[in-house]
Amino acid sequence: MVKSNPHLTKLQSNYLFPEVMKRKRAFLEENPHANLISLSIGDTTEPIPKPITDAMLRASQSLSKRESYAGYGPEQGSLDLRLKISEHFYRNKITADEIFISDGAKCDIGRLQMFFGPDVTVALQDPAYPVYLDGSVIAGQTGSFDLKANSYENLYLLPCNEKNNFFPDLASSPKTDLIYFCSPHNPTGYAATYDQLKQLVAFAKENQSIIIFDSAYAFYIQDPNLPRSIYEIPGAEDVAIEVGSFSKMAGFTGVRLGWTIIPQNLKFEEGQSVKALWNRFISTIYNGASNIAEQGGLACFTSEGKKEISKTISYYIENTRILKQAIDQKFETFMDINAPYIFAKCGPRSSWDYFNELLEKAHLITVPGSGFGKQGEHFLRFSCFGSRSDIELAANRLLNL
Amino acid sequence: MVKSNPHLTKLQSNYLFPEVMKRKRAFLEENPHANLISLSIGDTTEPIPKPITDAMLRASQSLSKRESYAGYGPEQGSLDLRLKISEHFYRNKITADEIFISDGAKCDIGRLQMFFGPDVTVALQDPAYPVYLDGSVIAGQTGSFDLKANSYENLYLLPCNEKNNFFPDLASSPKTDLIYFCSPHNPTGYAATYDQLKQLVAFAKENQSIIIFDSAYAFYIQDPNLPRSIYEIPGAEDVAIEVGSFSKMAGFTGVRLGWTIIPQNLKFEEGQSVKALWNRFISTIYNGASNIAEQGGLACFTSEGKKEISKTISYYIENTRILKQAIDQKFETFMDINAPYIFAKCGPRSSWDYFNELLEKAHLITVPGSGFGKQGEHFLRFSCFGSRSDIELAANRLLNL
Repeated sequence: MVKSNPHLTKLQSNYLFPEVMKRKRAFLEENPHANLISLSIGDTTEPIPKPITDAMLRASQSLSKRESYAGYGPEQGSLDLRLKISEHFYRNKITADEIFISDGAKCDIGRLQMFFGPDVTVALQDPAYPVYLDGSVIAGQTGSFDLKANSYENLYLLPCNEKNNFFPDLASSPKTDLIYFCSPHNPTGYAATYDQLKQLVAFAKENQSIIIFDSAYAFYIQDPNLPRSIYEIPGAEDVAIEVGSFSKMAGFTGVRLGWTIIPQNLKFEEGQSVKALWNRFISTIYNGASNIAEQGGLACFTSEGKKEISKTISYYIENTRILKQAIDQKFETFMDINAPYIFAKCGPRSSWDYFNELLEKAHLITVPGSGFGKQGEHFLRFSCFGSRSDIELAANRLLNL
Repeated sequence: MVKSNPHLTKLQSNYLFPEVMKRKRAFLEENPHANLISLSIGDTTEPIPKPITDAMLRASQSLSKRESYAGYGPEQGSLDLRLKISEHFYRNKITADEIFISDGAKCDIGRLQMFFGPDVTVALQDPAYPVYLDGSVIAGQTGSFDLKANSYENLYLLPCNEKNNFFPDLASSPKTDLIYFCSPHNPTGYAATYDQLKQLVAFAKENQSIIIFDSAYAFYIQDPNLPRSIYEIPGAEDVAIEVGSFSKMAGFTGVRLGWTIIPQNLKFEEGQSVKALWNRFISTIYNGASNIAEQGGLACFTSEGKKEISKTISYYIENTRILKQAIDQKFETFMDINAPYIFAKCGPRSSWDYFNELLEKAHLITVPGSGFGKQGEHFLRFSCFGSRSDIELAANRLLNL
């Protein structure tokens, strides 16, 4: 009989969000009339601006007419969209041929893991978005789970906590092939400074590592001095891949659209272009994002689209301010708002304890920080997506806790 | 420095369709006014029926309103759509929880390869759709490319040719973990009979293999006695995964929508449910198809949608008839029409020779059969997607060759 994939079966059970949902369901079974508010999974709740949905509407219509029907698009994505991303997000410093359109950041991170294969070593921030770790395990890039150590063998963690102001101590960090780095950071909400990213790029150069930079929350940065892309750092194009997303930028969580930058300069040890091999890879096992989603993506770059997107992001940022004011009364937070998440240190007990307490006493669903890594223990992550009324109600419940 | 993925770099260059496109471009450079007709990549050309695009239009609109906006859907896909697929394609024999919605068959085949991991052995039809082989190589399921043998080590091929009526001789076939099987078959167009699939299922049971059955062209079957799904064979749910697609059924090649069936009964050697592990896997590295595409998919099951889809398929089948009449005057074909492809034996010279000849003399772009495997040598694949006028012109050019 067929044996299961030995890498896949290394994965420990209880993927974070399913466990959160399980506890939510169990609570609702016992308390069917509870008005739960979800500050849990980072899912957008505000509608997509009309100029953007209108573009998707027109894209749908155009598929019903012979003269405008189109079948397969290029696996790399629509050239128009790649040009707009190049111009608007990278001031043409990253060119269209270095941009690959995807069906979202999570999916492309999974593809990157398959692309790099089993022989690379991996470092990631602790805490971190679970997909970096879980996908690395599936791709065979780690050893087995060590129950005693409560960690995977051959996995290198970069602790981010209040002691180092949520930026890893690179001087004591290991040398690995890949370094996942997310800024603004999920779950802590920390946005790295220009100098910190400069250090990170220098660290990667010194160690001949490749950074996989997740910029999914770049549009939430409020401080104009903070970099929104790793490529704002000179030389980053020699060492970094960047993964971007329309999900949190324009409410495309269900529409599915993102991009990945593989710079021309990035080379493997053998001298082979990473971009050329990636192009071969995605042409083989991928078929491009939905052409309707791509037309929606294009509309994000019109002046009307940009204005509307900016309004929605401001709305979520205002949510974050409201929630932070309440959380600060009860728990400890550490940073300014540059992301739609608040990472709060709740006290000496376990994250799951505080999760249960907020569920039971305030009917709020959060995410236990420990689910993102050991360094997240004692913390809760509050997602600030949601309607204003829900967020205000959640803030009141926290204040009355 | 980071080493490239040793499995990925085993892949031989010249992926079939890029090479076809290269030769096309080279020809057009020398003959800029040539009116080339593409009978090459199997890409749909007829518009998507309006009831279906209208559903996608409404889905786009609904995303612009707070009351109907939706973010992340389930990774497994919309339950409504899974129920419709269960009812309409599987008469509820396959249940909704065994159906996983994807962004297309090619992408899900890539995910299946990552899912099964490096330790499984693989058999596939020769000739075959290149993704089965290339993806297996990337996943580390084969050895290196052996230049002398002109094949990958540890790859098991099931020859399909005129001698065995394009169905593999299972009595002499090797035992492998996975068996890719496509029916109606790309590129040969052969649709396996009920008895043949019964043999295949028995063969898989005997060898404790898992069949990955690609049914992307099921809707083109004209002979009502031929099975459209592997699950028409009793017991197939113990040994087979089926991959389906809206691409060739409803013109969704650019919209991206498909599904994969992982039956409840399918187990790994350790007794673990394949479905449970697949569910874990896709929840980790995938985020579902576009919700707009899913609404289009749902509209395919309305009575109006079904009627219109059936018209478009009849149109392509009529194309195939017209083209086959012409091809039969020049080359040898072997089977009835149950697919939008014609696989023609052209003579003693190489496939690429005939490809070049048809390009130069008739300005037709085809696909060399040898690109699909050794058994395809001396053959050309003609795709029958295209406007009626192009197909008629192509048929005339063939007759005048």
